[in-house]
Amino acid sequence: MDSVWTNRIAAGAAEMHSSAIRDLLKVTAQPEMISFAGGLPAPELFPVEEIAAAAERALVESPLVTLQYGPTEGFGPLRELLMTWMARLGITVPADQVLVTSGSQQGLDMVGRLLIDPGALVAVEEPTYMGALQAWQTIRPHYLSVPLDDQGLDVDALEALLAAGARPRFLYVVSCFQNPTGVTLAHERRRRLIELASRYTLPIIEDDPYGELYYEGSRTTPLAALDIELHGELRHVVYLGTLSKLLSPGMRVGWIVAPQPLVDRLVMLKQGLDLHTGSMAQVVAYYACRDGLLEQHTPRLRDLYRERRDVMLQALDQTCAGVEGMHWTRPGGGMFLWVRLPAELEAEPLLQQAVAEHVAFVPGRAFHPDGGGGSTMRLNFSHSNPMQIEEGIRRLGGVILASLAL
Amino acid sequence: MDSVWTNRIAAGAAEMHSSAIRDLLKVTAQPEMISFAGGLPAPELFPVEEIAAAAERALVESPLVTLQYGPTEGFGPLRELLMTWMARLGITVPADQVLVTSGSQQGLDMVGRLLIDPGALVAVEEPTYMGALQAWQTIRPHYLSVPLDDQGLDVDALEALLAAGARPRFLYVVSCFQNPTGVTLAHERRRRLIELASRYTLPIIEDDPYGELYYEGSRTTPLAALDIELHGELRHVVYLGTLSKLLSPGMRVGWIVAPQPLVDRLVMLKQGLDLHTGSMAQVVAYYACRDGLLEQHTPRLRDLYRERRDVMLQALDQTCAGVEGMHWTRPGGGMFLWVRLPAELEAEPLLQQAVAEHVAFVPGRAFHPDGGGGSTMRLNFSHSNPMQIEEGIRRLGGVILASLAL
Repeated sequence: MDSVWTNRIAAGAAEMHSSAIRDLLKVTAQPEMISFAGGLPAPELFPVEEIAAAAERALVESPLVTLQYGPTEGFGPLRELLMTWMARLGITVPADQVLVTSGSQQGLDMVGRLLIDPGALVAVEEPTYMGALQAWQTIRPHYLSVPLDDQGLDVDALEALLAAGARPRFLYVVSCFQNPTGVTLAHERRRRLIELASRYTLPIIEDDPYGELYYEGSRTTPLAALDIELHGELRHVVYLGTLSKLLSPGMRVGWIVAPQPLVDRLVMLKQGLDLHTGSMAQVVAYYACRDGLLEQHTPRLRDLYRERRDVMLQALDQTCAGVEGMHWTRPGGGMFLWVRLPAELEAEPLLQQAVAEHVAFVPGRAFHPDGGGGSTMRLNFSHSNPMQIEEGIRRLGGVILASLAL
Repeated sequence: MDSVWTNRIAAGAAEMHSSAIRDLLKVTAQPEMISFAGGLPAPELFPVEEIAAAAERALVESPLVTLQYGPTEGFGPLRELLMTWMARLGITVPADQVLVTSGSQQGLDMVGRLLIDPGALVAVEEPTYMGALQAWQTIRPHYLSVPLDDQGLDVDALEALLAAGARPRFLYVVSCFQNPTGVTLAHERRRRLIELASRYTLPIIEDDPYGELYYEGSRTTPLAALDIELHGELRHVVYLGTLSKLLSPGMRVGWIVAPQPLVDRLVMLKQGLDLHTGSMAQVVAYYACRDGLLEQHTPRLRDLYRERRDVMLQALDQTCAGVEGMHWTRPGGGMFLWVRLPAELEAEPLLQQAVAEHVAFVPGRAFHPDGGGGSTMRLNFSHSNPMQIEEGIRRLGGVILASLAL
């Protein structure tokens, strides 16, 4: 590095490394690539006309609010709308506990800056969302990894760690259709987890971008709602929501529902980060949603993604069912499934071979804060169409079988 | 604070305090208030029709780019456009050294996280932009304050500090029509500052939101351009730009022009902060600007703000010229002027009295990292119309004269 900047990089920033998602998305931008790597919504379902109409209304009916600086907390009518959207799920809080963020990625950043000191302990699921690890990487926490299974976080294992004296700053959990595994924390475990949070005064960061994308049954009750049910107020849980998976990720509109004692500090933090989330995006989101777009649109997403999930599972069954030691999750919703490869295969070299066959995925190591997960991979099923999914899994299966034959 | 969160607030976040701007904007939202407190553009000049047309084109011609996730670096065509906009000023860099940010406030946050360790020394003008102090407050640097006069930063004073051994991480400077004082760093001082940067390997963060808003003469050459002129490449200067003062702050579109060695790290940092700046805002900004809106619109801003500056200066001359010990800057552009009160007056109690008369300003202490500036204030002249400016200065003058008479 040039001498001007040598020794001037802050300690946290000096150790940063690019995320696997980022490097992969570059490769996967090649047009002939079938990519199961990203976490992108299906663009063919973007509600373009509704958003275009909302943008027009925003600029005709509310041009000054749309173009001027706005409050750090977010656009008032959008906060009210999100409050109502949350109340539907049992997360009943006043609008002043709902803060608009620049996507839920910013929520993760804010939570990290508010609650983590360098070297502090943070409990995460193993594997966990790599974007959270990336948000916090300059703070360099230590991680307490809690295993999960097909019912979500192993609450017994967490309890054992707490009983043994572990005192993390908080537990981070993607509660529905987890990224990367696709598993959902079971209702009974949710109740136990809130009881544990009470008993051990354990804060929980509940990240819930996929909860509306259920393909069977109904919406799972968020941890935040159970916390309110038990205590009469939101006490232990910070809930992160986003419009990215429901309307458009390009709008970068997410939100935090925070316990009252954290609200002022979160607002002060955000003021230093970007003053406020884009007014245009917020006002357009408000106009798009206030006449029921979320309610109309999520069933379309569910129908399309359910089909794609089914096609991917069927293709895996056909291609890989006979491979000894290979397993994959069967998610009830969301955008991802998780593959455990035969122990002798490593996902990273496999990716090189897969890319040569024009199919891509994310190797599992990226989702493990302390290494591990070398024989796992994440597959996205929301972005490719059924023909691409069938063909991509056929190619991927071929690469796996060829590697095993060596 | 509730026991759940007690002792869980990170050390940096525990010491945060709300900014004066924030608290004041609440008071000044009262409709009868004449506010010289904020730093808001004149809403009557927002190019609403042009932005509405750009939004329509974005969603008709490029709906998928507008609504989907985008690259962390920014929307490619917008980066190219900003590269050209920068080259006009002599800041000739390839587009890959131009990164789109969520307003230049995010640029300040990114620079802080990249370059400041807790307790490190950062050189700033005294007074300096309070938003920078706020961006960096959780990192808790020490500040080396360098005085300024009506020619901008006192480069002799800086040189004396460097010669005496001070080694700040960087110097932060608002180079044109500084916030809060309105003064501009003189061309000859700019040359000397770049030479000092070379001699002492001193990085410079050049924040330049107001440079296009000149009301006499022509555009001042940025420090970044002089750095390139001297070294053949951008070596010492990180330049922060924004569309907030030229088109719309509500879009939250700014940019960083960074020396090549910093680019990858800034991108990695931003990925953790918010993945990327809103695609919709970027694509709309691109469509709005590519047919010359910036070139057409800035003369309108200059004409309106020049008149408002003149009205404010004339009103101050009429109301306060006879007040002994009171001085104010006569900025050649930008949005602010800076008032030094008679030494026996403190701006904060004066603000209470002014608010009672329905006129507001920002007390100068907010712009001083280590206290001081108690007898100074910042006045904004871009947001109020000439009648409001005359009336507001009349009231403010009355409050000052009444306080002196006590």
